[in-house]
Amino acid sequence: MSKKILIVGGVAGGASAAARARRLSEDAEIIMFERGSFISFANCGLPYHIGGDIPDRSNLILQTPESFLARFNVDVRIMNEVISINRQEKSVTVKNLVDGSEYSESYDFLLLSPGSGPIVPPIPGIDNPLTHSLRNIPDMDRILQTIKTNNVEHATVVGGGFIGLEMMEAFHQIGIKTTLLELADQVMAPVDREMAGFAHAEIRSQGVDLRLGQALSAVEYVPETHMASFESGESTHHQHINGHLNLSLSNGESLKSDILIMAIGVRPETKLASDAGLKIGDLGGIWTTVSMQTSDASIYAVGDAVEEFDFITGKQTIVPLAGPANRQGRMAADNMFDRQETYQGTQGTAICKIFDLAVAATGKNEKQLKREGIEFEKVYVHTASHASYYPGAEIVSFKMLFEPKTGKILGAQAAGKDGIDKRIDIMAVAQRAGMTVDQLQHLELTYAPPYGSARDVINQAAYVACNLMKGDVRPIHFDAVDNLTDKQLLLDVRNPNELEQVGYIAGAINIPVDELRQRMDELPKDKEIVVYCQVGLRGHVAYRQLINNGYKACNLIGGYRTYKFAKA
Amino acid sequence: MSKKILIVGGVAGGASAAARARRLSEDAEIIMFERGSFISFANCGLPYHIGGDIPDRSNLILQTPESFLARFNVDVRIMNEVISINRQEKSVTVKNLVDGSEYSESYDFLLLSPGSGPIVPPIPGIDNPLTHSLRNIPDMDRILQTIKTNNVEHATVVGGGFIGLEMMEAFHQIGIKTTLLELADQVMAPVDREMAGFAHAEIRSQGVDLRLGQALSAVEYVPETHMASFESGESTHHQHINGHLNLSLSNGESLKSDILIMAIGVRPETKLASDAGLKIGDLGGIWTTVSMQTSDASIYAVGDAVEEFDFITGKQTIVPLAGPANRQGRMAADNMFDRQETYQGTQGTAICKIFDLAVAATGKNEKQLKREGIEFEKVYVHTASHASYYPGAEIVSFKMLFEPKTGKILGAQAAGKDGIDKRIDIMAVAQRAGMTVDQLQHLELTYAPPYGSARDVINQAAYVACNLMKGDVRPIHFDAVDNLTDKQLLLDVRNPNELEQVGYIAGAINIPVDELRQRMDELPKDKEIVVYCQVGLRGHVAYRQLINNGYKACNLIGGYRTYKFAKA
Repeated sequence: MSKKILIVGGVAGGASAAARARRLSEDAEIIMFERGSFISFANCGLPYHIGGDIPDRSNLILQTPESFLARFNVDVRIMNEVISINRQEKSVTVKNLVDGSEYSESYDFLLLSPGSGPIVPPIPGIDNPLTHSLRNIPDMDRILQTIKTNNVEHATVVGGGFIGLEMMEAFHQIGIKTTLLELADQVMAPVDREMAGFAHAEIRSQGVDLRLGQALSAVEYVPETHMASFESGESTHHQHINGHLNLSLSNGESLKSDILIMAIGVRPETKLASDAGLKIGDLGGIWTTVSMQTSDASIYAVGDAVEEFDFITGKQTIVPLAGPANRQGRMAADNMFDRQETYQGTQGTAICKIFDLAVAATGKNEKQLKREGIEFEKVYVHTASHASYYPGAEIVSFKMLFEPKTGKILGAQAAGKDGIDKRIDIMAVAQRAGMTVDQLQHLELTYAPPYGSARDVINQAAYVACNLMKGDVRPIHFDAVDNLTDKQLLLDVRNPNELEQVGYIAGAINIPVDELRQRMDELPKDKEIVVYCQVGLRGHVAYRQLINNGYKACNLIGGYRTYKFAKA
Repeated sequence: MSKKILIVGGVAGGASAAARARRLSEDAEIIMFERGSFISFANCGLPYHIGGDIPDRSNLILQTPESFLARFNVDVRIMNEVISINRQEKSVTVKNLVDGSEYSESYDFLLLSPGSGPIVPPIPGIDNPLTHSLRNIPDMDRILQTIKTNNVEHATVVGGGFIGLEMMEAFHQIGIKTTLLELADQVMAPVDREMAGFAHAEIRSQGVDLRLGQALSAVEYVPETHMASFESGESTHHQHINGHLNLSLSNGESLKSDILIMAIGVRPETKLASDAGLKIGDLGGIWTTVSMQTSDASIYAVGDAVEEFDFITGKQTIVPLAGPANRQGRMAADNMFDRQETYQGTQGTAICKIFDLAVAATGKNEKQLKREGIEFEKVYVHTASHASYYPGAEIVSFKMLFEPKTGKILGAQAAGKDGIDKRIDIMAVAQRAGMTVDQLQHLELTYAPPYGSARDVINQAAYVACNLMKGDVRPIHFDAVDNLTDKQLLLDVRNPNELEQVGYIAGAINIPVDELRQRMDELPKDKEIVVYCQVGLRGHVAYRQLINNGYKACNLIGGYRTYKFAKA
């Protein structure tokens, strides 16, 4: 009773499933179809090869059809595209892309792991030899070829998501002046606007021309010299052609560029599934059960192409990331062998390197919570990645979202040059475990001066959140302090030299926290004192003094640092 | 109804409590007594100043009595030792160590945060001017003075705990040849012997003379030149005196050294508490409730001096670390103001930098579990700290202990040059949240090539643990493969060049995993095939092939790497 398993797509989810299926059964027949030339390649590594961090292209190729056959006895067929599914017969039709022939294979179980494709909007002139997406090794090779042959001095990247940011950095790293266009008012959508400010500041400090709130509206391709002749039979499309692009932007400006990368997002590859009548979800991905089955119990689907359920809301979501794809692939194979594994939902944990900065998030952000109508409160802390007296400490800027009544963790975001992955991982685990901010106070994390602090960022954020929940502090947030009434007074409790050096909020008076007890009578009792310091800690000390002395007050959570970077 | 709060000890726990108490009440009277000259100093930073990582001594002094008064209105009295407690009167007797005078202070609440002192065993000759402990800034200053004046070419450190290891590194870093003596067969007691092997290899690779299983049995102090004269009134104790030490070791060897650091452990400072009749626990620490109250409800105690409850066993424990001390101090202050905070138990999360290596642990180790009679299973994985194709990836060597029936996490240990703190933090959170190894499979951690892998170390360890629990693998551990019977056959499935380069286990035959299907008939069906590879992954693939083809087999968990370093 050996099973025959067909797998469509040989990268993250498909390769995981094939390897797992073989470990579960020696006698299953496993065939993996890949329409491209490569299986199991490091798609997340492509921008880093372009930027030179990964000098050796062969390091991106993790498995070959031969190595996969030797280790897992899987029949890997590259350049073979599954073009249709006959569900009644339980067979697929496959097209050999080398010779154009077609054939059919039967299955007991079919796994769809077709991934996602780049969204390329219908912008006039976008189809030209200097415009690229980056999804696979041939895309990468074409970009490298353009850089090599077109003497690229200026690159334009459209889209401030992961691939866009990584390509921006890659270009910058190899000495190409770069413009990053983003339609939204921020890059890195998983974090909220004010946390993206840290990324904006870093990007601009590196000399990249970052343009937010701007779309690409038209492209004019101006060829200069043709390196390949038409006579040789090559088409103009993706040839090695010199030239430049004149880009028209939505604000009426224009831009001359030598290469254009379109990285505005990806779209699930669902054609094969929908042609076969499999259910497609409302978000446009292949609908799946918690067992990773499609609407046909013999057909599983995993990875970028599917809708899975969101860990926080329980609703359907699409999260095209490698981690979920790998886990889903393994799980689908388990379930083909009656293992009854269930997918536990996606939090959307994500991280991006932006030059020296890491920006990361897990769970829901504020934008999403508002959209979902979920009540939330939030705190910001900025605190050292490890003991500040030990070399190499960097500020971790951290935002935590939670339910104000229960303290349930809703999401977390962080930006900084050290320890960002660690803090978001801690939050991802805590959220998945159903912990509350009260419990986060008690976390006992590794501490020695090179690695952490006796009171870690997370403990600190939990203390602030619990202070909020218990009414020990009345918060005010960064977006409210520019609109104070005449019943409020803005009080900066930092030292005067800090105001000079890093700036201050217009209209603030200054009494350093350590002088406040002596000078408290300078403050009016009939106004609300809006206290702030650099990060919120001294502000809290001052706030408690004021409250315990009968003043009305509130404290700017996250202090001047949150306020300032929110505008970046 | 303002409260009067007295605090004994001005470092981690005491300072946290004082600051928190002030934030809760402006009118409380708060007096903090410190018998030393410094409050709130960076005790964890002391070895790093000696080693030169923290060049500026003033960076170790986080607060002064003046700064603490200005910010928190706390009356800080350094060089004032509380010498007795009169519980009936609710008062303490204080000795001013500058002028020898004594006085009394009444209290509503008393907090004991006296810390711990170094254990100095009664070794003949140990009391000499070249022998030091390291607990505070004056200790550090004396060590620096000895280094400066005694032309120290060789240092001996006794004790392979945190302070011993850090002092070893500090000496090595400033060019002093160093011997580390440890009575046990391993350094870094929080991890098990085989995980300590990674530390031993690193220590020896740096050229430190590491001697395990050896005690210091006698010390002979040989003075050379006296830099201070007896006439000036100085005693010989801790003067600036040149000379050397002849050290006698328990194995009969001797050693000449220019400075000796005793770092074999610490003992809770309980004299004040026990003299006052407060309950002392069986382990020798001040007994406390979950509210951090002593047996006298008006007296709280926190930090190194107390017994708290162990998170895993629920029994009393003593964990002299800064994180718990800080949290307990804050909590004690809360409870003085009727906040009803309860301490949630100590996991013993700890980390130590050993040259380029980090070694860390949380929860219970195998030694402790055996002692407690708690049933456990264990797995080892060795996997890259981030995508192996991205520069800077290092191997994380990871051990996880769990209940074999429920999958409950019992403990975790890790060693490596990158990402160790992160993995143990993840485990500390997961354990505190009561997660099982099954749930760890589903953790959704940050992934981009510079930070992690789509399948993180923790996911990988969880997969192995779940394979064990489900019977998908029959494990064999490193300590069993040297004692195989003639009914077992050792099979190395690595490539031949790996055996040559990194070694192999005596008696193994070699069939690379990718040739196993073709060569399986070389193996006997009547013996158990004991499979191993470098880290356990290929071994598992081979194991599954064998089992699915009707062989008897088991797989060496953690592979050759665990086996090899267990002997280091």
